[in-house]
Amino acid sequence: MSIEQKINRITDNLLADYEKGRTIDAIKHFEHPDKESIVAILGKLRTIILPGYYENTDHKFYTVRSNISILVEDVIYNLIKQITIVLKYVPGLENEDSSALKDRAEKITFDFFDTLPKIREYIETDLEASYEGDPAAYNKDEIICTYPGFFAILTYRIAHELFLLGVPLIPRIMTEHAHSLTGIDIHPGTTIGKYFFIDHGTGIVIGETTVIGSNVRVYQGVTLGALSTRGGQKLKSKKRHPTIMDNVTIYSGASILGGETVIGRNAVIGGNAFITSSVPDDAKVSVKSQELVYNYGSKKAEELKPAEPDDAWFYVI
Amino acid sequence: MSIEQKINRITDNLLADYEKGRTIDAIKHFEHPDKESIVAILGKLRTIILPGYYENTDHKFYTVRSNISILVEDVIYNLIKQITIVLKYVPGLENEDSSALKDRAEKITFDFFDTLPKIREYIETDLEASYEGDPAAYNKDEIICTYPGFFAILTYRIAHELFLLGVPLIPRIMTEHAHSLTGIDIHPGTTIGKYFFIDHGTGIVIGETTVIGSNVRVYQGVTLGALSTRGGQKLKSKKRHPTIMDNVTIYSGASILGGETVIGRNAVIGGNAFITSSVPDDAKVSVKSQELVYNYGSKKAEELKPAEPDDAWFYVI
Amino acid sequence: MSIEQKINRITDNLLADYEKGRTIDAIKHFEHPDKESIVAILGKLRTIILPGYYENTDHKFYTVRSNISILVEDVIYNLIKQITIVLKYVPGLENEDSSALKDRAEKITFDFFDTLPKIREYIETDLEASYEGDPAAYNKDEIICTYPGFFAILTYRIAHELFLLGVPLIPRIMTEHAHSLTGIDIHPGTTIGKYFFIDHGTGIVIGETTVIGSNVRVYQGVTLGALSTRGGQKLKSKKRHPTIMDNVTIYSGASILGGETVIGRNAVIGGNAFITSSVPDDAKVSVKSQELVYNYGSKKAEELKPAEPDDAWFYVI
Repeated sequence: MSIEQKINRITDNLLADYEKGRTIDAIKHFEHPDKESIVAILGKLRTIILPGYYENTDHKFYTVRSNISILVEDVIYNLIKQITIVLKYVPGLENEDSSALKDRAEKITFDFFDTLPKIREYIETDLEASYEGDPAAYNKDEIICTYPGFFAILTYRIAHELFLLGVPLIPRIMTEHAHSLTGIDIHPGTTIGKYFFIDHGTGIVIGETTVIGSNVRVYQGVTLGALSTRGGQKLKSKKRHPTIMDNVTIYSGASILGGETVIGRNAVIGGNAFITSSVPDDAKVSVKSQELVYNYGSKKAEELKPAEPDDAWFYVI
Repeated sequence: MSIEQKINRITDNLLADYEKGRTIDAIKHFEHPDKESIVAILGKLRTIILPGYYENTDHKFYTVRSNISILVEDVIYNLIKQITIVLKYVPGLENEDSSALKDRAEKITFDFFDTLPKIREYIETDLEASYEGDPAAYNKDEIICTYPGFFAILTYRIAHELFLLGVPLIPRIMTEHAHSLTGIDIHPGTTIGKYFFIDHGTGIVIGETTVIGSNVRVYQGVTLGALSTRGGQKLKSKKRHPTIMDNVTIYSGASILGGETVIGRNAVIGGNAFITSSVPDDAKVSVKSQELVYNYGSKKAEELKPAEPDDAWFYVI
Repeated sequence: MSIEQKINRITDNLLADYEKGRTIDAIKHFEHPDKESIVAILGKLRTIILPGYYENTDHKFYTVRSNISILVEDVIYNLIKQITIVLKYVPGLENEDSSALKDRAEKITFDFFDTLPKIREYIETDLEASYEGDPAAYNKDEIICTYPGFFAILTYRIAHELFLLGVPLIPRIMTEHAHSLTGIDIHPGTTIGKYFFIDHGTGIVIGETTVIGSNVRVYQGVTLGALSTRGGQKLKSKKRHPTIMDNVTIYSGASILGGETVIGRNAVIGGNAFITSSVPDDAKVSVKSQELVYNYGSKKAEELKPAEPDDAWFYVI
């Protein structure tokens, strides 16, 4: 068989395989959102939110006003386009005609722009908290330019406003973009107060119905999750994830689980703690010291009980 | 010294350093595979496997048939090229002449295309399992467009078929590409049944000789690993990683280790469990509740033993 | 209101919001380093360090000498430019004029190039250690082309030399680039000896003042961190992170914390161990077996105490 014949045979087989009527066989039932365009929108929103930091080269040739208004117009145009596409995923709008969807997308887009001062107000506090919280930070510009936690929070704050405005898919595409770059998985449905600080960040998971107060610190590997989700789709839109009150610190590797679990004001949760019930205000919770086994080659294993945690309270950073 | 002289001096020093005969000094002993090309091949294979989702702009200008046959031809051309390069890494083929290698690469490439219907059959089941398993999923398109677990599994399924056909390096380049984007590290040698679901995913490691049945769910931070690999290269090609039977759920942070460890049908492994020996069918295994220490400022530390896990069985999501 | 009027209103609101005098309102107080340019510099440095592996297409048209000298000139030009920008972040140099900063940047850049043979010497040993340590590695080219641990170490070794030369921001931008691609977060201030091996890697955090000897192995999810950093900025430049002596192996999920914690020569730290005080030479430390609870549906829960760890010592890979 010639290469051409082989390509034809492969194509025939694939086309036959596409006829099996499964979800993966659907061909263009309707247009999908464009991830690349959404990531570009995110980048421009970052420039609008932090105009002195995420500069683009145009910046040098225009006054701030014209630069910003060009960016705003660009984001409006593209965001309306993407929102129009995804509105077809809203239950009840599947068969809406496209001009009605576009009108709705336009309204949402302008409503979103009205939230930018609020996003900026929150982001200023997150920046402040990151600097105060990390002795390794040399200055605030370093945080804006390099900290994955700050990037993930900024992305979440943008995505969350779109989520609140009822936009499907796009907020999740945004937070999964940040997840991919940072290892920090914050569902856009989460509610998070001011002065939020994430250090290192890789492995953090914050579930959809989590509520977080202000001035909360979270370290790498923390899960704010659900108890068993074996109920699957039946659990949709129930509060499955915990509530974290103001001034709480959660050290690395800790898991806090369940929709009725509340971590009280000023509480400190130690590294690797596994929490499935509420913790009162002002409590410092830590895992009782592990029993470690020491072995030195041919000598017998001996067990050493390390000292109980004292006021120094050891927490993983 | 002028800048030119300095550049010359630096270049001289580097060229002298390249003469030391170490592995890193090898200059073009032969051509290396091109990561960018392999990532592009992966992208085109995703479009072929899910023709309605990973569209490219050409899609609009051609019928499905011509679009698919163009993609198929493109992948064939580039995959033969990359496989020809890496076949030199197969023990025994180091000195094979390049036309013999190209013939072999061509055969492998066409054999690989014959596996696409099987890959598509498995991927449909993975999609189904992801939707059923996650109450945060609003629809299946969201999973295809945004879920890192789905992306990692799709990449693994492609890479695994190439691995089975004896292709070196390229499968690992593919799965490490997914690892980089998702934090999920599945070795292409792993065997995984239908209806596989990964949620969140960051920090998952699944070793080379792991065998996984069908309808298995795995959450973030899970390791399916080896016991000590201090034997290093001497352990090559031994079964070092566990076997997971059908319908098993493994919650976040659990580690299951060792080549003789078998997790029985329908077993549930709780969050953070550390398992180094086999678990029988139908068992629910969870870590005995940690002893947590509560401390309230000046008051004495008091120990609270939280209730033993009951039928609610708490598992980290 | 027309779209134009709406865009004007949004722009007016944003410009008013920029007038609030917060950190995020700063507009171009001075030029920021260019992340894209720094990532490009990193790529070229990788080619210079491993000339046989990270080839670019030019490679085919020039002799090695001219190719390397072109790369060297390119890196020198761009690195001087970026270092000149960031030197304004050095306390005391904020108001230095730009020609003095450029002279200083030039000196640093040439001093950095003098460290390349040392970086290459170390990287050869890291490659050796990766191959010897991993039974899944088929050959050393696979490690160079695909291993995230090797990529993170190479990036760290480059960034560390710039850190030692007093360059702000750029080293951290480099290591955070690697962190984003690999999930491995090594602060550029860390000191690491020869033959360093990281396997899998996702979730590893190695803090700024950590000191690591030679021939050390680290697996995924390991934290070499600080005890509580609630002191925040007050702790700056104190030794907050541990010291790891030669020939130590640290298995997955272990946390080693505190500036006075020293892990002695040849010690082995088992998976998930939580270490806050020093460990003597030659010790094997592992977590006492978890008590696991087994439950079989309607039958009573029974507790099984798995066997104590024996000479096989189970460690997570």
